[in-house]
Amino acid sequence: MNFNLPFIPERPERPRSSGLTMVMDKGLSLRQAEDLCEVASEYTDFVKLGFGTGLLTPNVKDKIKCYQEAGIKPYFGGTLFEAFIARNQFDDYRRFIENSGVETAEISDGVLPIDHDKKCQYIRELSKDFQIFSEVGTKLKGKEISNAEWVSWMKTELEAGAWKVIAEARESGNMGIYNEDGSANSTLIMDIKKEINTAEILWEAPLKSQQVWFIKLLGPNVNLGNISNTEVIPLETLRRGLRGDTLLSFLP
Amino acid sequence: MNFNLPFIPERPERPRSSGLTMVMDKGLSLRQAEDLCEVASEYTDFVKLGFGTGLLTPNVKDKIKCYQEAGIKPYFGGTLFEAFIARNQFDDYRRFIENSGVETAEISDGVLPIDHDKKCQYIRELSKDFQIFSEVGTKLKGKEISNAEWVSWMKTELEAGAWKVIAEARESGNMGIYNEDGSANSTLIMDIKKEINTAEILWEAPLKSQQVWFIKLLGPNVNLGNISNTEVIPLETLRRGLRGDTLLSFLP
Amino acid sequence: MNFNLPFIPERPERPRSSGLTMVMDKGLSLRQAEDLCEVASEYTDFVKLGFGTGLLTPNVKDKIKCYQEAGIKPYFGGTLFEAFIARNQFDDYRRFIENSGVETAEISDGVLPIDHDKKCQYIRELSKDFQIFSEVGTKLKGKEISNAEWVSWMKTELEAGAWKVIAEARESGNMGIYNEDGSANSTLIMDIKKEINTAEILWEAPLKSQQVWFIKLLGPNVNLGNISNTEVIPLETLRRGLRGDTLLSFLP
Repeated sequence: MNFNLPFIPERPERPRSSGLTMVMDKGLSLRQAEDLCEVASEYTDFVKLGFGTGLLTPNVKDKIKCYQEAGIKPYFGGTLFEAFIARNQFDDYRRFIENSGVETAEISDGVLPIDHDKKCQYIRELSKDFQIFSEVGTKLKGKEISNAEWVSWMKTELEAGAWKVIAEARESGNMGIYNEDGSANSTLIMDIKKEINTAEILWEAPLKSQQVWFIKLLGPNVNLGNISNTEVIPLETLRRGLRGDTLLSFLP
Repeated sequence: MNFNLPFIPERPERPRSSGLTMVMDKGLSLRQAEDLCEVASEYTDFVKLGFGTGLLTPNVKDKIKCYQEAGIKPYFGGTLFEAFIARNQFDDYRRFIENSGVETAEISDGVLPIDHDKKCQYIRELSKDFQIFSEVGTKLKGKEISNAEWVSWMKTELEAGAWKVIAEARESGNMGIYNEDGSANSTLIMDIKKEINTAEILWEAPLKSQQVWFIKLLGPNVNLGNISNTEVIPLETLRRGLRGDTLLSFLP
Repeated sequence: MNFNLPFIPERPERPRSSGLTMVMDKGLSLRQAEDLCEVASEYTDFVKLGFGTGLLTPNVKDKIKCYQEAGIKPYFGGTLFEAFIARNQFDDYRRFIENSGVETAEISDGVLPIDHDKKCQYIRELSKDFQIFSEVGTKLKGKEISNAEWVSWMKTELEAGAWKVIAEARESGNMGIYNEDGSANSTLIMDIKKEINTAEILWEAPLKSQQVWFIKLLGPNVNLGNISNTEVIPLETLRRGLRGDTLLSFLP
């Protein structure tokens, strides 16, 4: 901090296992990735190379190196995993991410239906060599799962070897743990909170209102993801009580 | 592609006449234009220097050169054409774009009422020296035109020498071919599709939901425009079935 | 301008006291700040280092220098002032901004309740050494103030030494002078306009519709703030009648 004010929530130093910020990279240039690292590396734990962008951006290896040198862990979004699985090419996926140099991997079934035992098998398998995020929740309307399934799947995926489990919201923040208008599905979230240590969960929260809601519910060191690359610093001001929405939240 | 997956839709190589992506530049710096070229030149056919920004940005000549060196065709948005025509300065407009070094020009009447025969005369005139986009559809509420007029004007503008005809949506995506809530005006679009080869049309589609809708209707090589400079790679993942919304669309 | 069209509204040269554009910097990298200066310095009067970002971005001194070299005046957002006042550290705040090298300061009570006489005392005190923006209007729902209070507070804050008074809208543009849907609270704005010289007011107007509304009401040289760094050039096209929404507004 450029000035040490009292009553600012403490944040653990990286590498940390709570208070995580996961940022969405939808196809940044190398220079834009460097810009993120210059200004926000201290506040960024993971960068997700969103959906299948990792196959299309010519600079992906350079960006992975750039993020790693800044102490940020890059990984490929779950949709890319699903694209390989949909073609029955799990071994190719493993080789692809091995060759790319990442140390983290996401396993999801947001669009592709995958038998849940099979999903847990993928988690067990990849967790031998990678730090695993597994994601629960569908991207598809009409395929929503029950609260009991959310809880049970999160538990079994953590048991299978996931380092953290991600609660789905889409990039737009209107699915999974949120209602169509972007407000929190609080019944679902409370049901999850009752049963699972929330430090094990990373909540996708692309909208400011969602970030504020989770910080007020679970404190400044809640794990939040799908943060736009331009919103990392604003999110950090929320976590530290340096923005209107939380300015008075951490004062005595 | 960084890995060759099967069942990924084929995309023609640039310069192409279908599968076009037209990107909106609302006043980028030279470095931001270079960033776009670094990461997305292969996926970008045209860059529109939006509305009258081309008169105000000091770097416009450098950006035009930068785009052209990356194989992208820059051009000035139709509103700038209308600003000259509103002042009865057509010859000045022609000189201005000639001096700027672009090879493409847009002719529109989105705000300024222009007699349709006169508009076609401008198209005939400028198409001698420039590749022409002509745009159909108003930017003004209460000035909407009938479906029959859309079809008839598109036809006559193509006959007059337009290379492609653009279907208006505004930067915000809530006019012309879209309803006020951004959803597609499907009756209008079907009426157009029945009468005109859709390869001759470039649909403005600034919102992801609109891009998905058109890709599902007309396939991965539909011509789409008014794409934000940060959304070119995400759009390309939609075209290739590498994002949730189209992940299963092109599989056998 | 790259071409001199007639009937383009005149804009005063910087440093100006009307026609101001204040831009929001939510945590830009140094390179992104340079990009803004490259393309838009002529059109930018002030850059606000938004809310508490000034405490968190490691590059803040370099950015302040960068903006100042481009003739732009940077300053810290009012929320940072409130964060110090909430801790009873006014003297520390004064030292902090003195050391940072800025010449402008904002005094606000958007979240922290501050007795209005006390607020005016802060204005009197800091205006000895700094050019002062004071802000009227709450960021909190349910704490809205009456139209009479808006007018009276604006007057007394200008009398206390504020150079301009800012009318609050939040970054999202749905509070203060706007209704929840972002439309203008026109009764309030008319009440203010009747009593105060609008050249003394800077209106926060993050949304395009709000910028258009104010330009149509108060002309191209209305003072507007909370403009995104990517929207400075588009706003300037609105002011000059070079965008659809105002294309016909300034023609004879």
